[in-house]
Amino acid sequence: MPEHYNIDTPDDLRRLPVTSLQHLCGEIRSFLIDHVASNGGHFSSSLGVVELTVALHYVFNTPEDKLVWDVGHQAYPHKLLTGRKSRFHSNRLLEGISGFPSRDESIYDAFGTGHSSTSISAILGMACAAKYRGDHTRQHIAVIGDGAMTAGMAFEALNNAGYEQPNMLVILNDNNMSIDANTGALQNYLTELTTGKHYNALKSHIRKLLTHPGQPANWPVEVARKLQKAVKGGLLRYSNLFEALNIRYFGPVDGHDLPKLVHVLEKLKPIPGPKLLHCVTTKGQGFAPAMTDHAKWHAPKKFDRATGATLDADTTTTFQQVFGDTLITLANSNPKIIAITPAMLSGSALTNMKKQMPERVFDVGITEQHAVTFAAGLAADGLLPYCTIYSTFLQRAYDQVIHDVALQKLNVVFCIDRAGVTGQDGPTHHGAFDIAFLRCVPGIIGASPMDAEDFRDLLFTAQAGESHGPFAVRYPKGTTAPLPPTAGFRKLAIGKGRKIRSGRDIAILSLGPVGQYVTAACKELEAYHLDVAHYDLRFFKPLDETLLHEVFSRFSTVITVEDGCIQGGAGSAVMEFMVEQGYHVTLKRLGLPDTFATQGTQQQLHELYGYDKKGIVQAVREVAGRVKKPEADFQIH
Amino acid sequence: MPEHYNIDTPDDLRRLPVTSLQHLCGEIRSFLIDHVASNGGHFSSSLGVVELTVALHYVFNTPEDKLVWDVGHQAYPHKLLTGRKSRFHSNRLLEGISGFPSRDESIYDAFGTGHSSTSISAILGMACAAKYRGDHTRQHIAVIGDGAMTAGMAFEALNNAGYEQPNMLVILNDNNMSIDANTGALQNYLTELTTGKHYNALKSHIRKLLTHPGQPANWPVEVARKLQKAVKGGLLRYSNLFEALNIRYFGPVDGHDLPKLVHVLEKLKPIPGPKLLHCVTTKGQGFAPAMTDHAKWHAPKKFDRATGATLDADTTTTFQQVFGDTLITLANSNPKIIAITPAMLSGSALTNMKKQMPERVFDVGITEQHAVTFAAGLAADGLLPYCTIYSTFLQRAYDQVIHDVALQKLNVVFCIDRAGVTGQDGPTHHGAFDIAFLRCVPGIIGASPMDAEDFRDLLFTAQAGESHGPFAVRYPKGTTAPLPPTAGFRKLAIGKGRKIRSGRDIAILSLGPVGQYVTAACKELEAYHLDVAHYDLRFFKPLDETLLHEVFSRFSTVITVEDGCIQGGAGSAVMEFMVEQGYHVTLKRLGLPDTFATQGTQQQLHELYGYDKKGIVQAVREVAGRVKKPEADFQIH
Repeated sequence: MPEHYNIDTPDDLRRLPVTSLQHLCGEIRSFLIDHVASNGGHFSSSLGVVELTVALHYVFNTPEDKLVWDVGHQAYPHKLLTGRKSRFHSNRLLEGISGFPSRDESIYDAFGTGHSSTSISAILGMACAAKYRGDHTRQHIAVIGDGAMTAGMAFEALNNAGYEQPNMLVILNDNNMSIDANTGALQNYLTELTTGKHYNALKSHIRKLLTHPGQPANWPVEVARKLQKAVKGGLLRYSNLFEALNIRYFGPVDGHDLPKLVHVLEKLKPIPGPKLLHCVTTKGQGFAPAMTDHAKWHAPKKFDRATGATLDADTTTTFQQVFGDTLITLANSNPKIIAITPAMLSGSALTNMKKQMPERVFDVGITEQHAVTFAAGLAADGLLPYCTIYSTFLQRAYDQVIHDVALQKLNVVFCIDRAGVTGQDGPTHHGAFDIAFLRCVPGIIGASPMDAEDFRDLLFTAQAGESHGPFAVRYPKGTTAPLPPTAGFRKLAIGKGRKIRSGRDIAILSLGPVGQYVTAACKELEAYHLDVAHYDLRFFKPLDETLLHEVFSRFSTVITVEDGCIQGGAGSAVMEFMVEQGYHVTLKRLGLPDTFATQGTQQQLHELYGYDKKGIVQAVREVAGRVKKPEADFQIH
Repeated sequence: MPEHYNIDTPDDLRRLPVTSLQHLCGEIRSFLIDHVASNGGHFSSSLGVVELTVALHYVFNTPEDKLVWDVGHQAYPHKLLTGRKSRFHSNRLLEGISGFPSRDESIYDAFGTGHSSTSISAILGMACAAKYRGDHTRQHIAVIGDGAMTAGMAFEALNNAGYEQPNMLVILNDNNMSIDANTGALQNYLTELTTGKHYNALKSHIRKLLTHPGQPANWPVEVARKLQKAVKGGLLRYSNLFEALNIRYFGPVDGHDLPKLVHVLEKLKPIPGPKLLHCVTTKGQGFAPAMTDHAKWHAPKKFDRATGATLDADTTTTFQQVFGDTLITLANSNPKIIAITPAMLSGSALTNMKKQMPERVFDVGITEQHAVTFAAGLAADGLLPYCTIYSTFLQRAYDQVIHDVALQKLNVVFCIDRAGVTGQDGPTHHGAFDIAFLRCVPGIIGASPMDAEDFRDLLFTAQAGESHGPFAVRYPKGTTAPLPPTAGFRKLAIGKGRKIRSGRDIAILSLGPVGQYVTAACKELEAYHLDVAHYDLRFFKPLDETLLHEVFSRFSTVITVEDGCIQGGAGSAVMEFMVEQGYHVTLKRLGLPDTFATQGTQQQLHELYGYDKKGIVQAVREVAGRVKKPEADFQIH
């Protein structure tokens, strides 16, 4: 930040006259644009809340007053104002500061966020704690976007807040967007509120009722009668959702008008009970390109600040692209296929399919629970939904996967995107647990492709057979070797893996794209005179028992590799088979250890946790007792 | 059912004149009261919807038209009217019909239910499927209680329905109750709607505005001005929540007035788009005792039909009672303790605590997601929430456990009620998966008590130490040997098990109250000359490594026993340790197999799945190769 104001903490901020705040906002914006242009990261959301952030820290006594940022990818200005300016260059990097609020990082981060729609519950907890302790002066503020407001848990919390009535302020940051444009009835409703459509319709309704030829003697009685009828009939439509839940509604207010924001927040401070301030902001405010293409600028890679042109344009193929393209191809020949995304239309590469066949792609909002049971409803009626959810967010719909899909053996294809470590978003966003939490669910089929071709074939297979119940395909964020141009679809045998490479000394069983590391490692291990066999499990449920019998009867040492938690993961599934079948083999499992994985690039994390090529080579050498590379002289031919 | 009408299917029903329907309802009620009086089961909810059920099948063309019962414990009249009268005596019994709707059981059960608040998502899926196929005539009806409406996923579905606008009818069955009295702002709002308070307040508001001394020339203009001001200021409070979400609202209608119901449903049929009919019913309607004490009569045991007196009154101690009593004791000495329940106040035995210290017990509604993050908020502010959730419902809050509690290492005690098989509620309600899905979560402490004393000590231990992060205690539904009257609290070492019995031949490691079976089995196995050691794991995370080293170095055969799924469960945790440490021991794991466990009493299910005393004896004999009991003559002394 150009050091005009030298603001490091909210205390510094509060010493400024209110007239300087707008200028400070300009500096913060400029710093943010510079930073993201050179480093990438979440962008438009933060640009949209610069004034709001400044106003909140100016008016409220943070960190004593509690402030929770929902999702948290809009918290960059907050971080800059709360002592993290000098470390901000390390944002989202390995060992750097987090891209999200984190209680470990700062006392100003009252509650860690990352997943959406938790802030009202969290702030309600703090507000009720204050009430319980008899503290009636502390302030509690949650800032939540209109997208996050579509998730059920936000509604659950509002309903509870309206009942408990502690002092708290929910700021609805209404920018008309999730990452993609928001969908859902709530969005239309909020738009009506902010455009005044709502109010104007009501006004014209009233005016019409009052229009009366002449003025008969019973005029007031007549008007009253008409009004009451109107109220009963349709006027109630022009309602306020939040007031219905006993939350006082204020606004809408322009979230970029700083003096107004400061004034309104000061006014709201002494009002007891739960309140909601409807604050209208523009995502990307202050950087023209970001104000028009919101999805693109949600979390851009490095770009040219002057032109907005993306640098290092990525030309590699991603699993996401393969997914989006494949699903269009499959849907074209199978009319039963429907795609569902909980607000990740572009992230899951469904934008093209939505354009080409809009009636077959449902963006249901940030509603993973509903997404899965909605899919179950479609499946119960004979359609075949491909329900695409990031691994970490599927945790939100675990009960629905079990209770609504698996128990009923419904044909839902779970496309589990961002499985494994996801990189710089860090511990809130890694897809670490899906294998462990899915493989205990009876009847589910669970697979992961080693490459793009395998991925296409799995997506094809999920719709090619008869009724199979839930079919989960997990795949990571990021790049893959492109598909051969002539690749057709192959129907794969469910629960069957494959041998990638024969070997004599040790066998490695891999699941998913980390199999590529294994391939490379096996090659490198030749230099150590280790002849390593490699099998691709492809399915973590059901397991390929024939393949496993082969492996465990031939090898006395086996290593499993997966991009997910070791505890209860695919390696454990293999281990269960081994022990049940009475094989006494040395088994080593590679994957994520029993801690929350940190942030960093995917490659850094694979290395850190010892399941990249290097880690695999080392693990094999350790179990084989060949830690030293044999000298060329001593090689036996 | 007295066979006056001989109704077996909706087709039979539709042949009756509308004037006979009320009488039929009397017969259905009588049948239900008889049945539940002699068998127990869900009761008041079904009594409350007899007229509604008859009206729905009378007006709609089931099973072509789709009808989904939310939660489903109110579906007994529906079952009686759809071909299951003759099998109804087997309701909830092993191999009998299910106490919930089930797609496997009947084509009239369009969607299986059990957990709350799934119906709107499911019916929206079917309605969208019809729309996609161009079918604009089929009807889609979901019946959902006001309690279930508090869960976020119902809101998610309404928001999506208001956007998609397919033909569907949501019937809000408003009886002012979950199992206990409903809490939450929504409840107050619905009460305002049904009492007309809402409308009356608006009327008087308007009347006041129109009262004007004299009638000046600009009277209409003046009134318009006043009205507009009022609308902007406060009149919007008198709103309609559902209309705001673009769902047409109708009602309230008396849900026991059959001709009215039939009339209203007929009228609603041709109206396109999503509609909500607010239907007011009385839980327990037609059986006086059930109309007053709702919680008691939600799912009674056998009772005397004439007097309502409970038969076979249960005088044994339950884990639930121990929980409720212990928490009061602990809370009395530790002011940080707060109890949270998502609408299971009586089920989790928190009613007394709520009476004694109302400000320390939060019934947050059917909102498991919110419950957990609300607990995290309290914990972030230094309080110590005991968040009590049934195992099967904790699946709803899995993401919040990981993301909001465990990742932030917050001190939340998860009291996981109904862990293991729960009995006659069947597969939707068993607590089968919690060990598997929790033990992959880094940093969580997971325990299960073998008896009541151990349980008290675990609950004590969870608040006795320093900061420990999430601490989960799982315990089953049902009885336990009572506590010794003088039992004090012991602080247990976290992650430490205990040896219950020494032995030479084989070791059994048990987790939780199934350890009682092991104790009995070990005794019985003496007759087979098998000297079996028994260890109580007590913690499934962290594991007691010292104990496990002892076991695996001394025994070549080990059996684990748990009341939960085998795949990924506590036995798997033990196995992971064994294999990691390089022990080559025969390990057999007892617990629930990889299928959805069926319904039956808990004892029947323990037997069926082979981990009651008999099953354990048999398993030991099999692994020991002693299938035949030695003849007394041949015993060696």
